[in-house]
Amino acid sequence: MNDDLERRIRALEDRVEIGELIARYGPAVDSGDGAAVAALWAPDGTYQFDDTVLDAEGVRSLVSYPVHEEYMRRGCAHILSAPRIEVNGDTAVAVTHSAVMIHDGGRWVGERVSANRWELRRLPEGWRVHRRRNRLLDGAAAARSLLSPESD
Amino acid sequence: MNDDLERRIRALEDRVEIGELIARYGPAVDSGDGAAVAALWAPDGTYQFDDTVLDAEGVRSLVSYPVHEEYMRRGCAHILSAPRIEVNGDTAVAVTHSAVMIHDGGRWVGERVSANRWELRRLPEGWRVHRRRNRLLDGAAAARSLLSPESD
Amino acid sequence: MNDDLERRIRALEDRVEIGELIARYGPAVDSGDGAAVAALWAPDGTYQFDDTVLDAEGVRSLVSYPVHEEYMRRGCAHILSAPRIEVNGDTAVAVTHSAVMIHDGGRWVGERVSANRWELRRLPEGWRVHRRRNRLLDGAAAARSLLSPESD
Repeated sequence: MNDDLERRIRALEDRVEIGELIARYGPAVDSGDGAAVAALWAPDGTYQFDDTVLDAEGVRSLVSYPVHEEYMRRGCAHILSAPRIEVNGDTAVAVTHSAVMIHDGGRWVGERVSANRWELRRLPEGWRVHRRRNRLLDGAAAARSLLSPESD
Repeated sequence: MNDDLERRIRALEDRVEIGELIARYGPAVDSGDGAAVAALWAPDGTYQFDDTVLDAEGVRSLVSYPVHEEYMRRGCAHILSAPRIEVNGDTAVAVTHSAVMIHDGGRWVGERVSANRWELRRLPEGWRVHRRRNRLLDGAAAARSLLSPESD
Repeated sequence: MNDDLERRIRALEDRVEIGELIARYGPAVDSGDGAAVAALWAPDGTYQFDDTVLDAEGVRSLVSYPVHEEYMRRGCAHILSAPRIEVNGDTAVAVTHSAVMIHDGGRWVGERVSANRWELRRLPEGWRVHRRRNRLLDGAAAARSLLSPESD
């Protein structure tokens, strides 16, 4: 009986930990905290957005990119939707939308609105991002396919 | 003692499952996956937005509506806020905001921002939507009332 | 063994309850329900936005401010991101973004997009807001610092 309860608790913990991991991304990047961003990724993890693929070291320096520094100077918010999560043993896939809202003339507008597919792995230290892909929802089929359960 | 723990675990599972169900809506509709949208509803469920009421079959065909196909062609994101959830036995009510962001001239703008009230039922196969109501937050009192605990 | 399971269940409950508390803010304020807003705060709690600091009584009357009544008349949605939560015994800190979307000419635009830092306390009746700070993400360093783990 306790084994069954423990298994159900662990399943809940997995989902809560993955949700928490993803919830850390926006505040980390919007406060320019490269170490906090990097801490979300596995050492061999990658982040692909548009035609760029970053390794873990690239992820750490993301907040120093000129375009990101300009976002922070103007005022930016990387807002992520609550994830859809599928856990399969020690791997998981989470799907979210993200909206980068930028301050412009006293209002905030959607500078980037994207589909995100997060492939996660359970490491000894906890769940980490193994591969994240982000594509602008600008009508491209490749972005829509990231949202699908069947996407590889 | 285990009975009490089991009850607390089940209460957590209910909330997590309902959150997950709602988190599936945006990716399903934005990727044009009518079967995935329909799978969220109970067989006798309905979805009311503005003055339209769809049954489960109508929900399945929602992604084929001309207005939705035009959204996908331009680029769209149905972003839902994390829900407020009240569970009462085998029924539940969840309240969320939704924002439909549409790609327009290199930016994304809020095409629809709505109040949503989801009435849910626990079926043998899991929680499903029995009735969802969506109203534009355009100043109408009927939209605000969907957000209230007392709304029927 | 049961003690360990109970501790893990309680940790999950804490996070779910805090997430739920924060998810109640947007619907409460957008429906003009001052009592529901006030119920989120501890009796000695405060809410600071921009240069304003409200006590619990001020929080209750927030929905009657002329600027808020004008928001509701035009149509508004206070959309909060899923929180990053750190629990430490009977206190916790949650960090979220918030976006106030306002109806304007048939579209909704970001009227306020802010960083939020919620300091919470476990009271006999449950988790309540002890101190919330909200600052516009308009490029100001003070807003970015609310998102940081090290912010005091």
